[in-house]
Amino acid sequence: MKEQQFLRIPGPTPIPPSVERAMIQPMIGHRSGDFKQLYGRLIPRLQPVFGTRQDVLVLAASGTAGLEAAAVNAVKEGEKVLVIVTGAFGERFTDICETYRFNVDRLDVTWGEAVKPDAVKAYLKKNPDTRAVFVTYCETSTAVLNPIEEIAQAVRETSDALVIADGVSCIGGTETEMDAWGIDILITGSQKAMMLPPGLVFIAASDRAWARIEANSQPRFYLDLLKYRKSAQDHSSPFTPAVSLLYGLEEALNIMEEEGLENVYKRHRLMKTMIRAAADALQLPLLTSEEAGSPTVTAIRPTAFDAEALRSEVKKTFSLTLAGGQKQLKGQIFRIGHMGYCSPADILQTITMLEIGLDRIGADIRLGTGTAAAQRVFLLEKGDNR
Amino acid sequence: MKEQQFLRIPGPTPIPPSVERAMIQPMIGHRSGDFKQLYGRLIPRLQPVFGTRQDVLVLAASGTAGLEAAAVNAVKEGEKVLVIVTGAFGERFTDICETYRFNVDRLDVTWGEAVKPDAVKAYLKKNPDTRAVFVTYCETSTAVLNPIEEIAQAVRETSDALVIADGVSCIGGTETEMDAWGIDILITGSQKAMMLPPGLVFIAASDRAWARIEANSQPRFYLDLLKYRKSAQDHSSPFTPAVSLLYGLEEALNIMEEEGLENVYKRHRLMKTMIRAAADALQLPLLTSEEAGSPTVTAIRPTAFDAEALRSEVKKTFSLTLAGGQKQLKGQIFRIGHMGYCSPADILQTITMLEIGLDRIGADIRLGTGTAAAQRVFLLEKGDNR
Repeated sequence: MKEQQFLRIPGPTPIPPSVERAMIQPMIGHRSGDFKQLYGRLIPRLQPVFGTRQDVLVLAASGTAGLEAAAVNAVKEGEKVLVIVTGAFGERFTDICETYRFNVDRLDVTWGEAVKPDAVKAYLKKNPDTRAVFVTYCETSTAVLNPIEEIAQAVRETSDALVIADGVSCIGGTETEMDAWGIDILITGSQKAMMLPPGLVFIAASDRAWARIEANSQPRFYLDLLKYRKSAQDHSSPFTPAVSLLYGLEEALNIMEEEGLENVYKRHRLMKTMIRAAADALQLPLLTSEEAGSPTVTAIRPTAFDAEALRSEVKKTFSLTLAGGQKQLKGQIFRIGHMGYCSPADILQTITMLEIGLDRIGADIRLGTGTAAAQRVFLLEKGDNR
Repeated sequence: MKEQQFLRIPGPTPIPPSVERAMIQPMIGHRSGDFKQLYGRLIPRLQPVFGTRQDVLVLAASGTAGLEAAAVNAVKEGEKVLVIVTGAFGERFTDICETYRFNVDRLDVTWGEAVKPDAVKAYLKKNPDTRAVFVTYCETSTAVLNPIEEIAQAVRETSDALVIADGVSCIGGTETEMDAWGIDILITGSQKAMMLPPGLVFIAASDRAWARIEANSQPRFYLDLLKYRKSAQDHSSPFTPAVSLLYGLEEALNIMEEEGLENVYKRHRLMKTMIRAAADALQLPLLTSEEAGSPTVTAIRPTAFDAEALRSEVKKTFSLTLAGGQKQLKGQIFRIGHMGYCSPADILQTITMLEIGLDRIGADIRLGTGTAAAQRVFLLEKGDNR
């Protein structure tokens, strides 16, 4: 049945049918009253997702443009920055900072592990001139959720550096309290836990960050956040916004609010626990520890079979798409995305398909054992302990 | 009937129903084989629209990001450039170039008129160190189509400067021969004659431009065209592409190819002539001459009534959205967009609604005269001359 596709990668993620329908409402002019009403309704509803009272600005672009916007608005050529590198997206922050000739230091962490806040503290004590710390909240390439609250606290205790966080593959899928935790700039994209196609960046900045942005002479135009903040006061966008995706965003927010953000986050934690339990039962080695693992994506590093063979097999048999490894983990891991429009029932189905794939490539597993482990986690969560 | 909306602004433009349906195909991963096949099919089909044998690169962003990409890839800080300013989008090119600290000279043209190639020639003779000439092909704010072929020729005859053209509000609606005419960088967006929602930039560069881009040390990351060219060889995008809009693009290209590009352009010219004939018959003063007028948008500068009153009236009575004036023309003109998913029948309907609006705001017109003039143009075009 070619119509049926199972997209279980850490973004883009499947789109809910009601969001699809919302996206094809009649086009409107972006300078019209109708557009301003739409935009004005959306901004305040994004604030709880970020955990901020600041405006959440929306750019027509994909996630990397959001990372670059944070960099060129907050930092200028020659200034010292620390980039925490826990995987491929930490590398990307480094590339962006080096492109703009910042004075870049890296804090490299073994891929699959989370950064230790003490290491950040130690660096900053030795480098008091650091202007910003770039950190990946969920490192998509390794399925690690870095302890962003503790990192922000560590920075605050030792430095005036801004905390700039890439939340692309977790915001909307995990608790985030930007203001309370002291994150200065937080970025996410539309195509992950926000349940939309790619093409929107969401970004917010603290008062401290805005003061830095206002004083920053680093050139930028399309990514100039001051322009977006100014237009947002008038419920508009400085450049033509991606109207159809904003229509979809309104419906995606309806869905999230109807479930309740607390329940959305709880569902993501449950899906993580179900997958990890299945992996343990099937003796599939998890790349990350329970503590470091993200609620939105899980990585498995098989030793007894070829990750790529498994991915090909499930793709062929079920149109189930899993992600592979990136850069230094290429060919060594496979990753299961479980965020956004994805339920515990979808995870049970994914695990059953995964077991069949493992069986077909000759891996030594017992059919149903992973599924049963995930089922038990689900029942336990529902208070129906057997 | 609230469901019915008439969007007659120079972008965003209405979306064909089959394009809407195409956009909600199931999401796919952007590193998948399916995506590469999609992307590989699209690139060559964009080439005839640009009139180029070069790759047409696709960015997830809106038009302004395309203008900025051209600037930061082709020019570096301190280099001398000429910006031809025929309206608000010429101003925008100037703002971008000044942001990046280029050495900017302006060639200002009265708004509503096209630039004279001889003026460009005269400037370049006096300024042989000019590295690039920025020009707006269709100046959306004044409804002028600048004579881009003659401008490019004038530059070529007198200078080594690159010709960088903003084609956002006309590419796909008017003949363009980028290679034959000697345009070095050409940019358009998805939300105008390409019949898609906003969110995609299309951009192509000549061999001369690529040589300049390769040697240019001006920093850029998300907008780095070298990254897009490299990925395009592998039918992929360096950063997450706007998948749903690319689905739509495939269907939009189907529609354009089925009609035939020659016929698409002919239809746009016909709509222009119909509207201008109606305006003449109704004694509405056109802002531009016949020669300078764009086939995609027409501007009218009324003297006997208030342009804003007319816009409000037709919006209220028919949900017909017309565009107003920008910057120095604010409140003084109204503009009718006639590009993309817009037919001669739509134009007849627009004119009839316009006549009613004129009557209701007390303008001294005879109902039906504009419509009849447009009908005669249509019949003449069909060879059915009465």
